[in-house]
Amino acid sequence: MRFCSECGAPVALRRPEGDTLDRHVCTACGEIHYRNPKVVVGAVCRWRDRVLLCRRAIEPRSGLWVVPAGYLETGETTEDGARREAFEEAGARIEIAGLLAIYNVVRIGQVQLFYGARLLDPDVVAGPETLELDLFEWGAIPWDQLAFPSVHWVLRRALEIKDDDGPHLPALGP
Amino acid sequence: MRFCSECGAPVALRRPEGDTLDRHVCTACGEIHYRNPKVVVGAVCRWRDRVLLCRRAIEPRSGLWVVPAGYLETGETTEDGARREAFEEAGARIEIAGLLAIYNVVRIGQVQLFYGARLLDPDVVAGPETLELDLFEWGAIPWDQLAFPSVHWVLRRALEIKDDDGPHLPALGP
Repeated sequence: MRFCSECGAPVALRRPEGDTLDRHVCTACGEIHYRNPKVVVGAVCRWRDRVLLCRRAIEPRSGLWVVPAGYLETGETTEDGARREAFEEAGARIEIAGLLAIYNVVRIGQVQLFYGARLLDPDVVAGPETLELDLFEWGAIPWDQLAFPSVHWVLRRALEIKDDDGPHLPALGP
Repeated sequence: MRFCSECGAPVALRRPEGDTLDRHVCTACGEIHYRNPKVVVGAVCRWRDRVLLCRRAIEPRSGLWVVPAGYLETGETTEDGARREAFEEAGARIEIAGLLAIYNVVRIGQVQLFYGARLLDPDVVAGPETLELDLFEWGAIPWDQLAFPSVHWVLRRALEIKDDDGPHLPALGP
């Protein structure tokens, strides 16, 4: 951030009175611009004994596999966001069963919430951010071709509890 | 948002190619500025059979009672953030027991995570954003003087399970 989004003047890093951290503060209007972590929402979507994975068509990690996930938008709940991402990336209509995991990925400023979900039908189709997709048997998951650590973590967690109806506490870390 | 935080030129609401929503897009450099929900983290902090509440010294809802909570900062986990807020608002050192609730407060663009926690000692002291604080018996909680709906919800949830060791599934709504 270099300029104030409210008045267009340059910002400078300063510590506001009573604050414990430096912030981007406008040198003209004094507006304090906070930078906050973002929420990522996703879902492990099952159809019977298979799980939906999508191969990314976009960077980072284009060509590697993920579960549908993305940034939460203003105006939607975390569950809405997980359903939207499943639809955008895979044309998938899902029913959310429960919260599977919350991961803090501090280095990149993300709080990631993954839900367990059931596909309402197996007719899935790659969206614009997806090269291809498939419903994988658990034994066929391409563990060495997953795009991000949290995809590993959440699939491992889903695999652990796949035959147990639960309810399950959400995993709070890898 | 009126100006681009990267180059200082005016922004306009436009729908980027392939997007489904209008975004603030820079009219000069083309930067797309997303607005994302924020994460609020807090804790219901117990000392034996009492619960810590703080009376707000700041707007909104100055003079009303809350559990320690605030915006998650970049560079910390959600648990770190809940511990920091308890320390900033009440000088409280806490041990987090588990995730108590996740609330989507869509209207104000917040995802709120509340933990259950134990005070490591009962020596609490009002921070600069707190008028006064106290350790309330459950029967003495000032239900009609709470600052926000989610404070109601999480205290009611904590009260429901207060004598049950758990583990408990986090509440996902009121």
